[in-house]
Amino acid sequence: MLGSAGEALSPVVRRHWADTHAFHASPGPSRLGDRGVAEYLDECRELVLDEIRQFLPESPRYRAILYDLMLEYPMRHAKALRPALCIAICRALGGPLEGVSKSAAVLEFYHNAFLIHDDIEDGSEKRRDGPTLHRSYGVPIAVNVGDAMLALALEPLLDNVRLLDLGKALRIMQLVARMARESAEGQALELSLVRERNWTLVDRDYLRLVHKKTTWYTFTTPLLIGAMVAGADEQLLAALRRYATALGLAFQIQDDALNLTADEGAYGKEILGDLWEGKHTLVLTHTMRSATPREAARARRILSKERAPRERPATKVAQTVARLAERGEIGESARIELLKACAETHDRRYRTLEDVEFLFSLVKKYDSIAYARGVARRRALRAEHSLERLSRRLSPSVHLDFLRGVTNYVIERER
Amino acid sequence: MLGSAGEALSPVVRRHWADTHAFHASPGPSRLGDRGVAEYLDECRELVLDEIRQFLPESPRYRAILYDLMLEYPMRHAKALRPALCIAICRALGGPLEGVSKSAAVLEFYHNAFLIHDDIEDGSEKRRDGPTLHRSYGVPIAVNVGDAMLALALEPLLDNVRLLDLGKALRIMQLVARMARESAEGQALELSLVRERNWTLVDRDYLRLVHKKTTWYTFTTPLLIGAMVAGADEQLLAALRRYATALGLAFQIQDDALNLTADEGAYGKEILGDLWEGKHTLVLTHTMRSATPREAARARRILSKERAPRERPATKVAQTVARLAERGEIGESARIELLKACAETHDRRYRTLEDVEFLFSLVKKYDSIAYARGVARRRALRAEHSLERLSRRLSPSVHLDFLRGVTNYVIERER
Repeated sequence: MLGSAGEALSPVVRRHWADTHAFHASPGPSRLGDRGVAEYLDECRELVLDEIRQFLPESPRYRAILYDLMLEYPMRHAKALRPALCIAICRALGGPLEGVSKSAAVLEFYHNAFLIHDDIEDGSEKRRDGPTLHRSYGVPIAVNVGDAMLALALEPLLDNVRLLDLGKALRIMQLVARMARESAEGQALELSLVRERNWTLVDRDYLRLVHKKTTWYTFTTPLLIGAMVAGADEQLLAALRRYATALGLAFQIQDDALNLTADEGAYGKEILGDLWEGKHTLVLTHTMRSATPREAARARRILSKERAPRERPATKVAQTVARLAERGEIGESARIELLKACAETHDRRYRTLEDVEFLFSLVKKYDSIAYARGVARRRALRAEHSLERLSRRLSPSVHLDFLRGVTNYVIERER
Repeated sequence: MLGSAGEALSPVVRRHWADTHAFHASPGPSRLGDRGVAEYLDECRELVLDEIRQFLPESPRYRAILYDLMLEYPMRHAKALRPALCIAICRALGGPLEGVSKSAAVLEFYHNAFLIHDDIEDGSEKRRDGPTLHRSYGVPIAVNVGDAMLALALEPLLDNVRLLDLGKALRIMQLVARMARESAEGQALELSLVRERNWTLVDRDYLRLVHKKTTWYTFTTPLLIGAMVAGADEQLLAALRRYATALGLAFQIQDDALNLTADEGAYGKEILGDLWEGKHTLVLTHTMRSATPREAARARRILSKERAPRERPATKVAQTVARLAERGEIGESARIELLKACAETHDRRYRTLEDVEFLFSLVKKYDSIAYARGVARRRALRAEHSLERLSRRLSPSVHLDFLRGVTNYVIERER
């Protein structure tokens, strides 16, 4: 494959490269074959990285302290699902690659900005096999990098006015504004549940949460933008929204299940991270309503704690206690009492390994992962049916094949 | 004055109210008189709050957890300097209020979103007489509220396409995108100085920092947008940029000086907050280069520490130590050693009151506040000259009077 993700592609290579890539294929008999969904994604990722590099300012002064940091998440092993969906639907409807590639890149850029801020909000430690941005550079810098990305994403959207007709360019901006608002409302809902220590969710509440915080920016907006660039009518756009809604749920539930079952190497995030963070998932919602009152009470106490900071501020004191005990300056009972005070300061406030293991034992006891996977599969099936009805209006092509393959990918993926 | 800031104004009242307000006055002989700059600002603030309320979604579900939080900072005693500058220049050039009021509101909204994120980045405690948003609701919610505001600000900018001609609406969006990028670059510069513990700034570095992090979004963008709506030519826009640059520096230096000299009640922020936060100011830059090597070394050590978290995690341990000593289970030397360990954990890492007092004593010793105020005054004078040259192209009016009054306001204000 020409042009690795790490290189800046010259315009010449880029044209050639685009011509030989799947997403550039004209509608016609399928060429996707067994190259599969993963390769389509990889190719879109390269295209999008190239677009992103083009709209990052060339600024020696700010490169090391700002612009390089914006590329950290995109350059890790990102899926590029959002731009691929945007490109595939556009191409399957006969729309031009040139008309959609900037918007696809903006979607990926927005996604990465959201991830940086979400990781801060959730206190996440790992993202795509590396430390989260705020763990590497601190919260202040990570907040600012996300803000700068949101600012930078506006400029290519304004460029669309030259590339597309004005009506389409404006509608894309409206869709992006709507997406950003829906995502923020979803995050607000999730954060308010955490803050209120509300663990009485029913499935419907969870589904609304996911629709807001994940579906809008992962499926709905990419598909609507891609289809709009290709000139889709309102009826088709409405059908795409239904398809996106079903697929979004399947995607997020698989995400939640993976967090509890994945192999750390393949997954790229912290295993059981959702339990450490006390996140609301369909899995945990099921566990909490299946648990005995006694189990549920203990789980609620654990979930009301915070995630521990990486440093234990009492360590220095504990060292002093040990030294004094060795010198015989404090007796055994005083030593124990002091160490208990050190530990209590920590354990009463922060979730411990024992806490997380208890939560996970409940998840297993009530088979909540299987329950959640069942819900995901039913939603994926619904998405499949939606796509089949839709597909009469799409040309047979590698792009349609990609869309058909995505449903399965969403519930079978390992990261 | 009709319509207090806390009320939603009915459309009828609003029309009447606008007609009787200064910023609605047509160009013509001045009416500002001794009502002064402060009242012009207050009136703009009311207009802008009204506009902001109109673009906040009516959403019972998200109101309490998101939209009410967006109004917290704007509803406190905000100056509304940015929208007032935008409106005044537009009106002084004969532009229509209706054409500029949405953009003015967007500028105020952006400003408040920046403040929320800046307060997190700087670890600030107080803003406009109240706790900072992250202190009230935690960092996760505050990050998200800021993001949601940035998202929401896009929609009224898109409405401008209907209200103004397309070219103007697009240029306003470009200016806002540029503003957001310049501000983020300024923040990146400031945060990188903090991270690198770099205290070797010369005045020129500080001036560049301020130009980026403050001037662009406080003066340059509001003035350019207001003038553009009124149809100003490139020459006038270039003159406005020079005026903005001088005024921005005077404004920020006064801000830095106020932080060290203001009366807490009038000021609305934490006195000496910049020293607690270890911020780069012209004052501290002057102090650091005036100090003896010994003083500078101690100051650098202090500035390399972090701001202490509000809770001291070792309190519980200290209580246990006291109890054990009382019961005679530990001797005096062990007690002292343990308490020292508790304190050291804290003091070696975090800035203490003694630290901040030392920094402040150096500031006073080298008269750095007077030095900074001198620089501010010279810049304000430069701004005054720029405005006088400009004013030949502006109609004599309350709006021009406001602009003339602003220079003095900027360096004389008490909050």
